[in-house]
Amino acid sequence: MAVGETRFPEMPVIEGLRLGTAMAGIKKPDRRDLVVIEIPEGARVSGAFTRNAFCAAPVTVAREHLAACSAHGEGARYLVINTGNANAGTGETGLEDARATCAELARLAGVDERSVLPFSTGVIGEPLPMERLLAGLPTALQGLDDGATAWREAGEGILTTDTRAKGASVTLALGNQTVTINGIAKGSGMIRPDMATMLAFVATDAALEPVLLDQLLREAVERSFNCITVDSDTSTNDACMLISTGRGAVVEDEADLAIFRNGLQRVMTELAQAVIRDGEGATKFVTLQVDEARSRREALDVAFTVAHSPLVKTALYASDANWGRILAAVGRAPVEAFDVERVTIDLGEVRLVERGGRAPGYTEEAGSAVMAREEIVIRIALGRGEQSATVWTSDLSHDYVTINADYRS
Amino acid sequence: MAVGETRFPEMPVIEGLRLGTAMAGIKKPDRRDLVVIEIPEGARVSGAFTRNAFCAAPVTVAREHLAACSAHGEGARYLVINTGNANAGTGETGLEDARATCAELARLAGVDERSVLPFSTGVIGEPLPMERLLAGLPTALQGLDDGATAWREAGEGILTTDTRAKGASVTLALGNQTVTINGIAKGSGMIRPDMATMLAFVATDAALEPVLLDQLLREAVERSFNCITVDSDTSTNDACMLISTGRGAVVEDEADLAIFRNGLQRVMTELAQAVIRDGEGATKFVTLQVDEARSRREALDVAFTVAHSPLVKTALYASDANWGRILAAVGRAPVEAFDVERVTIDLGEVRLVERGGRAPGYTEEAGSAVMAREEIVIRIALGRGEQSATVWTSDLSHDYVTINADYRS
Repeated sequence: MAVGETRFPEMPVIEGLRLGTAMAGIKKPDRRDLVVIEIPEGARVSGAFTRNAFCAAPVTVAREHLAACSAHGEGARYLVINTGNANAGTGETGLEDARATCAELARLAGVDERSVLPFSTGVIGEPLPMERLLAGLPTALQGLDDGATAWREAGEGILTTDTRAKGASVTLALGNQTVTINGIAKGSGMIRPDMATMLAFVATDAALEPVLLDQLLREAVERSFNCITVDSDTSTNDACMLISTGRGAVVEDEADLAIFRNGLQRVMTELAQAVIRDGEGATKFVTLQVDEARSRREALDVAFTVAHSPLVKTALYASDANWGRILAAVGRAPVEAFDVERVTIDLGEVRLVERGGRAPGYTEEAGSAVMAREEIVIRIALGRGEQSATVWTSDLSHDYVTINADYRS
Repeated sequence: MAVGETRFPEMPVIEGLRLGTAMAGIKKPDRRDLVVIEIPEGARVSGAFTRNAFCAAPVTVAREHLAACSAHGEGARYLVINTGNANAGTGETGLEDARATCAELARLAGVDERSVLPFSTGVIGEPLPMERLLAGLPTALQGLDDGATAWREAGEGILTTDTRAKGASVTLALGNQTVTINGIAKGSGMIRPDMATMLAFVATDAALEPVLLDQLLREAVERSFNCITVDSDTSTNDACMLISTGRGAVVEDEADLAIFRNGLQRVMTELAQAVIRDGEGATKFVTLQVDEARSRREALDVAFTVAHSPLVKTALYASDANWGRILAAVGRAPVEAFDVERVTIDLGEVRLVERGGRAPGYTEEAGSAVMAREEIVIRIALGRGEQSATVWTSDLSHDYVTINADYRS
């Protein structure tokens, strides 16, 4: 199941950046499960990774190699991504396997192995099937291409329990030049990213200084992937990479930077929302907007407390305007000296709660009409400050239980 | 559904303490939904209440009345409890209704209204049906009795989505005297108590100083009701009351106190575990034991992070030894400078994880054999300190979704 439309866009070419996929049979036969992204020389690469303490072997190696590239003033040259196996909880063997994957791709492509970054997603705790994975690399390399089909196939080649590929693209005018930002992402369950989502790869031809690239990635992640949750579980393999080939317009002055920052945020937010629309078992796409908080942290705490409440999530699934559950979740959020008399809660255009109780004009019919929709906005105003946060989430359905109880994922 | 046996014990008499129930038709006809507990003069009453900021009207009034009693050096004389309606999120009207309930019972019983404490549980946000509730009070008063049947009927009269009544009792020898501790509790969903569980009433004939009574209640709650979670949702109506009639043995010296403290902990823990065994949709009873933490707070944080993980809970439901999900949940717990190389995870008697990955001797067969059980112990040793915590939880089943999506609770 999935909510609403998510069309994979016709991605424009980003000159010098090519993608290749293979069917390596890592977990299942006859599906794209191995992706190689080739990055031109002189590009800059920035990454945000999971903060899960049990981070996966490829996350450790990708961080190491990225640091080595930075130390030499170079960008990475290849990303290699497999689905079907997360190479997480695999100890020393997992690290060796991730390094061996980089080494083999480096040998085939004639580059230094530290310029190859590995990424894995899939089941935790099983060894990577190295023979099949390595055997797939030549096919992926031979298929390298910069066209829209290559982007779409790469989008498909990183999926796990996702029901559809997720891509987003914008082309921005900077003065008399244009720059493009393309991104692909995967993710459906174990989604409560902390620094980045499961896997997202965003590339642009814009030229950006490394420090600025890092800063732009962190800002955009903070208001996109770090604002979504399916099930509160932060993955061991989260990674979000931003690649700047530098072959397009140079982003220098404040006006250009504002346009670029805005475009990047759009691409990242669209990808993050696509993950939620395709959340495991999702039948609703829910926007939680918290306003009038003392700090953004406080607004996020309230939003995530509501977004993680199983009782709110099952009420959303049932299209039941059970506003008491929303109120109870808001009330248990970690807010100091919380005066609930000042709180208002709106469901779409309907006022649910004010002055600590049900709003006077509220009717069950009005609430139920909003809850029946596939896309629902819940707005919570705390009445104690000026700060806001928006979080996107899905509901908790029978399909969520079925997907996670019936299959080893 | 419910896990294991929970026999409602044959409660001994606690002299002077009587219980009466009525069928007031608050939400549904023909079920016990109104309970009155009469407390003898001279008794002491201590309470622990929810920390949900949207606390229910009866919680506010019970706190006020309890404070008024303390100020006069007296204990409360009556507790009045209704199920079927939580009187929460009901604003000013809710407070008036809770006060009117106390006033009417006080009038009928000939006591001061501030010596009556109100408690409610059930649906949030609907006004109390005051006419039916008040009409039920005389029946409950007429039925006041101190026998085992009265205790059992009171246990039944406070239930909501619970499938069975929950009671626990111990009789302790203090020197050549005995004291008794009886307790009843309710709770099945919206269970992640913070200070106390949904509703629990514990009474003893032991004589205890008020300050000591408060302290004993807080200690026992901290390691019983505050260590359970069904769905991470803290209720608006949580309350746990401890009544000491003072007609039995006086608890004075250290040896007696140790015996009493231990007995109270047993009763409270048994009640708390009974709530989990009867958790909404529960098919498993899971003990999460975290050892070798730097602080008890840290141990609790790890235990609750695992206990709240929907992916761990669905794996438990599926009897799937998906240890990667446990590892991922441990890894996202808020532990500073967390070295996962030192962590070990055991499932029952089977070592799952050590040195950051799957334990060498682990086999899927051994893990599956433990997961197939109804009662499962997961032990997580952090390898960084001396502190421990134990948390009890249930699994996430289709029935949980059905119960919360199909009915307005």
